[in-house]
Amino acid sequence: MPEAIPSPRPVAGVRLGSVCAGIKYPQRLDLTVIELDAGAHCAAVFTRNRFCAAPVSVARAHLAAESPRYLLINTGNANAGTGAPGRRDAEACCSALAELAGCLPQQVLPFSTGVIGEPLAAARLMHALPEALRNLQEDGWWQAARAIMTTDTQPKCATRVIDIDGAAVVVTGIAKGAGMIRPDMATMLAFIATDAAVDGELLHDCLQEACNASFNRITIDGDTSTNDACVLIASGRAAVEPIAGASAAYRSLCAAVTDVCIELAQAIVRDGEGATKFITIEVSGGANADECSDAAYSIAHSPLVKTAFFACDPNWGRILAALGRSGIADLDSERVAIYLDEVCIVRAGARAAGYREEDGQRVMQRPAIRVHVDLGRGVAHSHVWTCDLSHEYVRINSDYRS
Amino acid sequence: MPEAIPSPRPVAGVRLGSVCAGIKYPQRLDLTVIELDAGAHCAAVFTRNRFCAAPVSVARAHLAAESPRYLLINTGNANAGTGAPGRRDAEACCSALAELAGCLPQQVLPFSTGVIGEPLAAARLMHALPEALRNLQEDGWWQAARAIMTTDTQPKCATRVIDIDGAAVVVTGIAKGAGMIRPDMATMLAFIATDAAVDGELLHDCLQEACNASFNRITIDGDTSTNDACVLIASGRAAVEPIAGASAAYRSLCAAVTDVCIELAQAIVRDGEGATKFITIEVSGGANADECSDAAYSIAHSPLVKTAFFACDPNWGRILAALGRSGIADLDSERVAIYLDEVCIVRAGARAAGYREEDGQRVMQRPAIRVHVDLGRGVAHSHVWTCDLSHEYVRINSDYRS
Repeated sequence: MPEAIPSPRPVAGVRLGSVCAGIKYPQRLDLTVIELDAGAHCAAVFTRNRFCAAPVSVARAHLAAESPRYLLINTGNANAGTGAPGRRDAEACCSALAELAGCLPQQVLPFSTGVIGEPLAAARLMHALPEALRNLQEDGWWQAARAIMTTDTQPKCATRVIDIDGAAVVVTGIAKGAGMIRPDMATMLAFIATDAAVDGELLHDCLQEACNASFNRITIDGDTSTNDACVLIASGRAAVEPIAGASAAYRSLCAAVTDVCIELAQAIVRDGEGATKFITIEVSGGANADECSDAAYSIAHSPLVKTAFFACDPNWGRILAALGRSGIADLDSERVAIYLDEVCIVRAGARAAGYREEDGQRVMQRPAIRVHVDLGRGVAHSHVWTCDLSHEYVRINSDYRS
Repeated sequence: MPEAIPSPRPVAGVRLGSVCAGIKYPQRLDLTVIELDAGAHCAAVFTRNRFCAAPVSVARAHLAAESPRYLLINTGNANAGTGAPGRRDAEACCSALAELAGCLPQQVLPFSTGVIGEPLAAARLMHALPEALRNLQEDGWWQAARAIMTTDTQPKCATRVIDIDGAAVVVTGIAKGAGMIRPDMATMLAFIATDAAVDGELLHDCLQEACNASFNRITIDGDTSTNDACVLIASGRAAVEPIAGASAAYRSLCAAVTDVCIELAQAIVRDGEGATKFITIEVSGGANADECSDAAYSIAHSPLVKTAFFACDPNWGRILAALGRSGIADLDSERVAIYLDEVCIVRAGARAAGYREEDGQRVMQRPAIRVHVDLGRGVAHSHVWTCDLSHEYVRINSDYRS
């Protein structure tokens, strides 16, 4: 149903141009240029994978050196595991765009996604840059959301409009990702922009807060990409004063950015490779948030839990086993309760009195299910969003390179 | 081809009797009693999963209290997640066997495997005990190996005969396991016996050493079972002096026990749910063995690596990405080399000069493949054994309870 989704709201001062560069496949959008007004601020977080891709190294260095004017994003090739030649390719693409656009190469941030370990078709990418620049428009978000997809089946956009001091402020974002998803800082590629004016440091705080509540709470397969990046742009073109830290306006903006990121993050999970179910794993009653998060991820990553969800089987023994290996050394199993949506299936570490298999099965038929584990040892809580593991996941990932 | 495997060598002083008790399915062997001579010693290691099953709690307590005379093993039901009633069931089964056999209930160790969270059919189990006792024989290993299977497609036995001071000493073992395999101490169920005489403490050291080199180096799906247990029995019936610690005889025996455990552990991986390939992940050049082990498990657990092996696709980018998220904070990616069997695919963190895709594809066709990662930062090394992730894994685990 992608065509039924309304086009995202443009952000003044941010223009996007997408083209078919033929990087891996002919005749699909695979290259996007995002142009920022002079004076825009930009914050970014990147993968913590030790094998970060060439564009990640280059983007980090450029961002530290200059104020960005252009983001250059390609799909079809991750330019990862490509060593020094990969970094030269990423730099060359930035230089080519800078020359056409009249800025410094360091004002261009490169991003790549796609297959790892193959040389980037840099010449084809550079050849397509003039057309991408001709296509630049504020209304280019939807095209860009399509152009950055890899195994995604749906483009992912989200928009919020908030009122700050009587003026409308827009937050719009796009993301891609469906596999190799267990972000450790940001996930895959996400680009979010607002027309509010926010300085670099505050913008980074806002992005970090939003990522922690969104992209850092999802997992599809536990694999952290080499190319994860999430960028937040503030163009400063809205008719409001620059946003100050610790102000009501900052809280409003932060909430809107977080909302957009959560919508994008959940869209990534819903579009998880082969996913048939959207699963929220909520762990409460912990001694601290970290153990709740560890327990949630342990359940979310268990292939046995994931296949049980695919089978609509309320096989709570698998949830119990995954919880039991999550590393909480002094967990008292007799205090643990587990719920599937409104149904209590485990109480005091064993099958709840009155639990009937058909109640569990009724919940398991739903397309979105909440697993709630109460550890019964404190007041901390955490949650992650994940999906099931299906035949289709195996098919997609055993076909991907062919 | 199970019938072609030679029957395991009996161990004097150890008798096994198996029967069809009808615990979950009719007409399959699902209950085994192992009888030890008075004077035999017994060591055991158990799962570290915090939700350990009722029989694990009971077996631990009985082993601490008395010298075991009987092991009582059922498949079809794990008696896990069953709370206090589950423990009462396990105790009742031990008492029933003790009464029939004329020993203390604490001299019976119970073991269960199968579905989690359902009440044990204790009455049916107890009803079958007299027949199991009538079936006791030293030549009962093969039947027992079949009787403890769950989703296993093959019974798993291994035997070694060694010479100690001119006498033949036997080590024979059986194991079961095909899913929920990422042992954290012992794996699933394994029972190994020798006719050497070894005291309890030394026997425990020997078992721990053997487990660390075998069951603790395998993973199928990263899920640690609630019921893992591994038992080593020494009947003392061989015509040799009791084994002393730090002696040549102890080293010989330990090596034989380790060999038997490695053969059983590898058999579990080869029989991994849906497995089509046996994969050794070897990581060398680490600063310490722990980081090598973490890196090996990170690769072994990656669903993207596992599906690439299923597809016979030398998609080394996925190996690189899994390595990069394994938690080695200061890993220098430019020192990393990766080999598939004899083919070097990555050198200095990027595709090796001279690597040709067809060389990688040739290796990937093999049924057993060694992935060797050299971290280039030290002399430590480690390895794990694992398998691929196939359509069949999803099918088995989305059908298992139905």
